[in-house]
Amino acid sequence: MRPDRDFFFRLAEAAKAETLPRFRSSLSVVNKEAGGFDPVTEGDQRAEIAIRALIEAEFPDHGILGEEHENVGVDRENVWVIDPIDGTRAFISGVPVWGTLIGFQQNGRARMGLMDQPFTRERYFADGERSWYFGPDGERQIRTRDCGSLENAILFTTSPHLFKGWEVERFQTVQDKVKLFRYGIDCYAYTLLAAGHIDLVIETVLKPYDVGALIPIIEQAGGVITTWDGGRPENGGSIIAAGSPAVHAEAMAILNGR
Amino acid sequence: MRPDRDFFFRLAEAAKAETLPRFRSSLSVVNKEAGGFDPVTEGDQRAEIAIRALIEAEFPDHGILGEEHENVGVDRENVWVIDPIDGTRAFISGVPVWGTLIGFQQNGRARMGLMDQPFTRERYFADGERSWYFGPDGERQIRTRDCGSLENAILFTTSPHLFKGWEVERFQTVQDKVKLFRYGIDCYAYTLLAAGHIDLVIETVLKPYDVGALIPIIEQAGGVITTWDGGRPENGGSIIAAGSPAVHAEAMAILNGR
Repeated sequence: MRPDRDFFFRLAEAAKAETLPRFRSSLSVVNKEAGGFDPVTEGDQRAEIAIRALIEAEFPDHGILGEEHENVGVDRENVWVIDPIDGTRAFISGVPVWGTLIGFQQNGRARMGLMDQPFTRERYFADGERSWYFGPDGERQIRTRDCGSLENAILFTTSPHLFKGWEVERFQTVQDKVKLFRYGIDCYAYTLLAAGHIDLVIETVLKPYDVGALIPIIEQAGGVITTWDGGRPENGGSIIAAGSPAVHAEAMAILNGR
Repeated sequence: MRPDRDFFFRLAEAAKAETLPRFRSSLSVVNKEAGGFDPVTEGDQRAEIAIRALIEAEFPDHGILGEEHENVGVDRENVWVIDPIDGTRAFISGVPVWGTLIGFQQNGRARMGLMDQPFTRERYFADGERSWYFGPDGERQIRTRDCGSLENAILFTTSPHLFKGWEVERFQTVQDKVKLFRYGIDCYAYTLLAAGHIDLVIETVLKPYDVGALIPIIEQAGGVITTWDGGRPENGGSIIAAGSPAVHAEAMAILNGR
């Protein structure tokens, strides 16, 4: 049995109760990587506990892959993929472009997904067939747009500093061709793409829980999301998402040096 | 006679009626500079007309300096400084970190100011003595924070690509010293600084209407905002804003090669 929309929304509300009250408050920030800056907040950890408790009660035979706590049964048929606060840097800076990501996979393939931004009251949900938006400006089914070619595209990436080695120059070549590029909004960029506001997101070093919820939101809105070598994106890594196959192909040719 | 808060809020509401319905809709984008990408929307132009009409009716002897239309009496004692949509790139990308900026100067000095973000329902207002926040998480007087030194600071700039020549290396040196840096949120960064969520904003090539409304919001919250050479910021140019004099001084020493 698949979970339904009401269950996803219950998970989002449970996470919101732990994240939103801590947004723009003094935070307990823990460095996960010595030397690096990878903040994780109390809200992150507690939201994941709240989400897991609901899943374990409702679907005890499902696996869970989360950012903050130990994985459970990730080789099972049904697996949840959770990032309670994607965009922790945005969160600790007070910018409301972080999101709660909850994805649902069957046999290793992303099938359903939710992104929730509780401060702006925006929620995106892929139900297995279609993608939906719920926000202060209404509720509607969403579709990506086809801007035709790179020269008309709006491109987002979280930070140009994440690219290394040969990636730097190829990303730069794409960036030089687009109409407009912007940095810094994490999962929020993928949902803007799903809703047809932007055209391209290119990133690297993503974890499975950074994209698990976003894959169905983009695909069920008509978009394309793959790894840079054209494979399925469920395992993360270097990821490209586009509003149309044409724009995806044009950017892929550059990223692969063709 | 100085304008009061109610009048500023009337201006914000008039602007919102022109901007918000056009946010995330298909836009009529006009290139202001041939060859460059400087979109200006219908909303930008119409919001400024709406703001000007209210000011001219209520304060016919005041000057007006705006982004979209001709300046009027900018050498008068009382002058309004208006940017109806600061962050046009954010606006056309669907990211709600643009803002309506309305500043009020007396004898060339910024005295009162308002920033309004109608999608997130956030409003900042400097009344001549104190700075205030009005948002979905409440209403309160705001204060900047003192993070002590650069190594604890969160730094924002709109884009690292705006710096030219010797600015590039000096900005980079500051960026290398801070705890966390982020790109891309325009006026929204200055208001996060005023509210004590971040510590430092460093930018260049700003126009007077980019900062006019923000100067009193920051100063009346206890922050420091100057040009890179330490002068008054009313005329724009290269601008630095900090949550405390200590952090301002530390960044200034680097920006000035001391």
